[in-house]
Amino acid sequence: MSRNSLGYRFKISSFGESHGKAIGVLIDGCPAGLDLNLDAIQKQLNRRKPGQSELTTSRDESEEFEILSGVFDNKTTGAPICITIPNTGAKSSDYEAIKDVYRPGHADFTYDQKYHIRDYRGGGRSSARITAAWVAAGNIAEQYLQQVSKIEVVAWVDRIYNIKSNVDTAFVTRDLVDESAVRCPDKNAASLMADAILVAKNEGDSLGGTIACVIRNCPAGLGEPVFGKIQAEIGHAILNLNAVKGIEFGDGFESSKRKGSENNDSFVNQDGHIATTTNHSGGMLGGISNGESIFFKVAFKPTSSIKKQQQTVDTSGNQIPLNIEGRHDPCVLPRAVPIIEALTALVMADLFLENQTARLK
Amino acid sequence: MSRNSLGYRFKISSFGESHGKAIGVLIDGCPAGLDLNLDAIQKQLNRRKPGQSELTTSRDESEEFEILSGVFDNKTTGAPICITIPNTGAKSSDYEAIKDVYRPGHADFTYDQKYHIRDYRGGGRSSARITAAWVAAGNIAEQYLQQVSKIEVVAWVDRIYNIKSNVDTAFVTRDLVDESAVRCPDKNAASLMADAILVAKNEGDSLGGTIACVIRNCPAGLGEPVFGKIQAEIGHAILNLNAVKGIEFGDGFESSKRKGSENNDSFVNQDGHIATTTNHSGGMLGGISNGESIFFKVAFKPTSSIKKQQQTVDTSGNQIPLNIEGRHDPCVLPRAVPIIEALTALVMADLFLENQTARLK
Amino acid sequence: MSRNSLGYRFKISSFGESHGKAIGVLIDGCPAGLDLNLDAIQKQLNRRKPGQSELTTSRDESEEFEILSGVFDNKTTGAPICITIPNTGAKSSDYEAIKDVYRPGHADFTYDQKYHIRDYRGGGRSSARITAAWVAAGNIAEQYLQQVSKIEVVAWVDRIYNIKSNVDTAFVTRDLVDESAVRCPDKNAASLMADAILVAKNEGDSLGGTIACVIRNCPAGLGEPVFGKIQAEIGHAILNLNAVKGIEFGDGFESSKRKGSENNDSFVNQDGHIATTTNHSGGMLGGISNGESIFFKVAFKPTSSIKKQQQTVDTSGNQIPLNIEGRHDPCVLPRAVPIIEALTALVMADLFLENQTARLK
Amino acid sequence: MSRNSLGYRFKISSFGESHGKAIGVLIDGCPAGLDLNLDAIQKQLNRRKPGQSELTTSRDESEEFEILSGVFDNKTTGAPICITIPNTGAKSSDYEAIKDVYRPGHADFTYDQKYHIRDYRGGGRSSARITAAWVAAGNIAEQYLQQVSKIEVVAWVDRIYNIKSNVDTAFVTRDLVDESAVRCPDKNAASLMADAILVAKNEGDSLGGTIACVIRNCPAGLGEPVFGKIQAEIGHAILNLNAVKGIEFGDGFESSKRKGSENNDSFVNQDGHIATTTNHSGGMLGGISNGESIFFKVAFKPTSSIKKQQQTVDTSGNQIPLNIEGRHDPCVLPRAVPIIEALTALVMADLFLENQTARLK
Repeated sequence: MSRNSLGYRFKISSFGESHGKAIGVLIDGCPAGLDLNLDAIQKQLNRRKPGQSELTTSRDESEEFEILSGVFDNKTTGAPICITIPNTGAKSSDYEAIKDVYRPGHADFTYDQKYHIRDYRGGGRSSARITAAWVAAGNIAEQYLQQVSKIEVVAWVDRIYNIKSNVDTAFVTRDLVDESAVRCPDKNAASLMADAILVAKNEGDSLGGTIACVIRNCPAGLGEPVFGKIQAEIGHAILNLNAVKGIEFGDGFESSKRKGSENNDSFVNQDGHIATTTNHSGGMLGGISNGESIFFKVAFKPTSSIKKQQQTVDTSGNQIPLNIEGRHDPCVLPRAVPIIEALTALVMADLFLENQTARLK
Repeated sequence: MSRNSLGYRFKISSFGESHGKAIGVLIDGCPAGLDLNLDAIQKQLNRRKPGQSELTTSRDESEEFEILSGVFDNKTTGAPICITIPNTGAKSSDYEAIKDVYRPGHADFTYDQKYHIRDYRGGGRSSARITAAWVAAGNIAEQYLQQVSKIEVVAWVDRIYNIKSNVDTAFVTRDLVDESAVRCPDKNAASLMADAILVAKNEGDSLGGTIACVIRNCPAGLGEPVFGKIQAEIGHAILNLNAVKGIEFGDGFESSKRKGSENNDSFVNQDGHIATTTNHSGGMLGGISNGESIFFKVAFKPTSSIKKQQQTVDTSGNQIPLNIEGRHDPCVLPRAVPIIEALTALVMADLFLENQTARLK
Repeated sequence: MSRNSLGYRFKISSFGESHGKAIGVLIDGCPAGLDLNLDAIQKQLNRRKPGQSELTTSRDESEEFEILSGVFDNKTTGAPICITIPNTGAKSSDYEAIKDVYRPGHADFTYDQKYHIRDYRGGGRSSARITAAWVAAGNIAEQYLQQVSKIEVVAWVDRIYNIKSNVDTAFVTRDLVDESAVRCPDKNAASLMADAILVAKNEGDSLGGTIACVIRNCPAGLGEPVFGKIQAEIGHAILNLNAVKGIEFGDGFESSKRKGSENNDSFVNQDGHIATTTNHSGGMLGGISNGESIFFKVAFKPTSSIKKQQQTVDTSGNQIPLNIEGRHDPCVLPRAVPIIEALTALVMADLFLENQTARLK
Repeated sequence: MSRNSLGYRFKISSFGESHGKAIGVLIDGCPAGLDLNLDAIQKQLNRRKPGQSELTTSRDESEEFEILSGVFDNKTTGAPICITIPNTGAKSSDYEAIKDVYRPGHADFTYDQKYHIRDYRGGGRSSARITAAWVAAGNIAEQYLQQVSKIEVVAWVDRIYNIKSNVDTAFVTRDLVDESAVRCPDKNAASLMADAILVAKNEGDSLGGTIACVIRNCPAGLGEPVFGKIQAEIGHAILNLNAVKGIEFGDGFESSKRKGSENNDSFVNQDGHIATTTNHSGGMLGGISNGESIFFKVAFKPTSSIKKQQQTVDTSGNQIPLNIEGRHDPCVLPRAVPIIEALTALVMADLFLENQTARLK
């Protein structure tokens, strides 16, 4: 499989660059007969859209998507679904100034080393711009899951910088998440987070943090041994998202500080249904869902593009000071929430389809 | 691609169960003409072998591997390399007692849910026994890397329970790592770790912790955008290892608590070579290696099999107390060190091969 | 890999339907740094274009392609190349009349059986319309081959109905092929073929035939044992083309009527270069190119859409007479020549790239 | 996907060389819960076995297979099934004489060109010896098909040299096929074929021919557009078999000599079931099965190894006469019958599984 693709059964192939004609995605493997709700796709795109609030970049993208194929009378036909989103907001002139510069934290240097050619406009292929198409594809995956299961995926901002939140994974919804611009459903924390982001913005700096995600009502049995474990597939998808530096499942790093007797989740019979009394594992055993809620946290580094002056080198090796102009998010996490949901839904749709043939009926 | 396989260019397919005739691995994509050092393979297998010290399980496996194909006159021929390791140490009788029981923390329940049939002997397919073959394959990947590059991979135990170590990633070697049975090159920490493991063992309990890994001398340019980023490929491989609950790259979760101005690594010209002044990113930008050392940490939960009595249910749904007999590691980390190295080498060989055709010469 | 994709290293993914917004192709794996000649792409598209002569359908397609991604300053960047071609010539009204009818020889019935939904407009996904994008992708593969090797691919019409041609595979060129509208470089045969096609057209009928193809200057060593043999990869690609019912390599079915002593090609030393005295095998041994010219022949059934009245059933199972209106080729072979070249070039680029890592240098 | 593997959903990976320790196959994707009949596997292996009659090579292989993994209590568990067959009959000494010689019609030269190293013993990886494991895997695929459908696959020798047979595809069975050693169910033809083979054998020569295969009771809907058409998948599998030089589906090359009005199969309503009045297409439309019998023919070149003296070159480029000793089939077709069945069953199982998720229920 190509490395611009994700998934085996519900598979997306990503294409496009920040300032090319369009970015897009090709979905292959979506079963025929799915009723498509185009508004639902647009709604998730709008949550990722730049310019939503003073917390985000002011780059203005229409984010109007077009479905070129695979859909007929609002139903999927089984044929590949190609979705494109034009790059209407691209201002290439912003980038002429830095075409010969290696920005710290960005992929300029490594792309040059790898390919000996680089589309420097807006970061080209390495720009998070391309994730807009992932969000569209992820919502189609989600619509699939909704039509064949009760699986639901909700992500939110868990921490910004050193400001932690406290959220009940059993009840959090996207509506609750969207009550604050920062997309943290803990109102007190959300307020502090917004303040911190604005301070950083004013300083010409940026902040990182963590996003949490829960998958509820996942039936037991999803996940593929040995190299398709549910945590590995989700981890793989999400570690491909720009700025992500780590991921943990269930109690994650915290569980590594425990004894086995503290960390094991006991099985219990709840009215004929086998459940666990605790859920330290985050809903998975041996890489397969056990019917409990799946949850994980994702670490994002602070945005690499900052206005504060930095030291770097140009493509000729000269050391120079760098002042990045242009429109950048002081904190990417609020806009990354729907991307995490999209990637998670894509993986779950993929594993759901894979599981259909795990055994003879 | 199947979910029992790892990699695209240097690809392994895993097979076998804990108490079947043999476990093994099929390697496809290893270039022809590689000189194979069989002793080096055995050496890594011995580091993963049970019964090495009082810190590990006493299950005795010969770990004698056999190469069935793909090697002629000690050179690879380009044909698939099938390696088998017989399960000589399997004592199935240990497991008759628990064939109808769902052990907490294990995959018994989820395999039953997924497949409606389960090879219960020793955990069957979900046993870490199968990783022995990964270690053999990983060493072949490592020999490949050694013959075409200067890449070297070293892993060690970074923390057990709450006992942290302090290790210089620039100089740590496997010999230094092996100076302690616990495989921590910080001698003071190693001693405390060993004590903690023995205490847990005597209590019938188990401990988790973290393993660190460094990849040195990796050339810039490895890693494949967009869904084959170096952190995603390594993360995917390692999140498939039993007991792993999280992974972080570079400064990982810690970097998510920083400002951009603190976390960006400045580029600098070092005698005509472009380097970075710090390495918070862990040697990768945009998912591609930048020439600095790659490093990451992996969180392991404490071993699920403990002697302390636990509460669980049997396959009929009856709640029962569970006393696990048999031979188990009170802490899996010392033996997991060569597995982390193996998975890492496999990913790096895969990305190295992929990179050969990234551009026209 | 998905079944809408072809190739592993130089990989295309097809999308689009006959009367959707656009058809297209996504190319992944094309190395960075390739100089793209857009005119060369258009030239091959024009050879496949409808309405070229009275021998072909009069459906008018502009065949203007657009490259959405992966190309910067006329060079490939290593990113996926998305090419779209709008369906400007689509007249859906032509098809309303037959939306509830199963046309003989077409995929209407089988798509309904498989998907329970069908984009009936112009055959939808099963239309040969989608091969226009393959031709564009195939020409990029060809440009790659030209920049890294001397490989050249030429196809031509070998037989129409019962009219055979006689062509020297060593000297045939695309210019010679294009001297006749029927694309047969044997002028006498070409004239008879054209006559036969016009007769069939006037009768409301259609004709089949064979296309031959030669790959010259292919270095020895291309083709991957065991399930990637050069004949299997080419065969797979071409058997996916509409109307193809058979393929044979070298002397093919004829060689099955010989004795071994008649069919084996003897090796000979030609001035220090090992060659064969004959080339019954068509340039391949054990599925790997041997340095001789590769050649094969492809059988096409006559076009399924004919004006003559046919008997069929509608989607409700009623038996009805069918009179197909609309614009159809009385013989698809002249327009299929560049498609065969495209598929062949795609396979050769794929195998060429794969072979780069067959052995250590 | 690797080129030593076949299939996506029911996938086999081949390994082994003619004179290595063992040949084998790894099956991944076989659903859990399949009841395995080991005798049925052995029965097909015995049909492929050397030394069955005076028409075949006298190399003696025990053909005793061993299942290393993936089966528990005679049921598949969903884990990969590794099957090995030891190379007990290998006489490497037979091949010392030709280790520096390029045998006409064999892959010796091309492997050397590709890999710069070659396991010359018995043809190494290029030997048809490895197809024994395909037969074992193919029979498991067949058992799967039998337990989930009524699909049945029967192949037979259709022509040897210039001796044609006449067989009714609707009624031919494996028992009828096995009534003659040559595996042609037309008794008169079978007798003439056997005579022709013995004549060739006595002359130190060999014969080619065609094998026909029918798939009966295939439900409509199998086959994946666009690059997974049923003819392309079967064609790909079978063109990877040693000595195969061509394949045709339905009326194949013959249909290319017809008019559309002669070749189209009319749909008809047969008691509420939509069928076709003729079956020129061989049971497929648009690459998808239409419910009629699928049939195809495969062309085999005559065996390359013959006793008659041939001219060739050695690895140093010296021209030499070649007298091949050792044990070779004067005609491979009788033993190739179960291999064709195996490859066909593998493809059908793969497409059957793929089709399970073609649409929402």
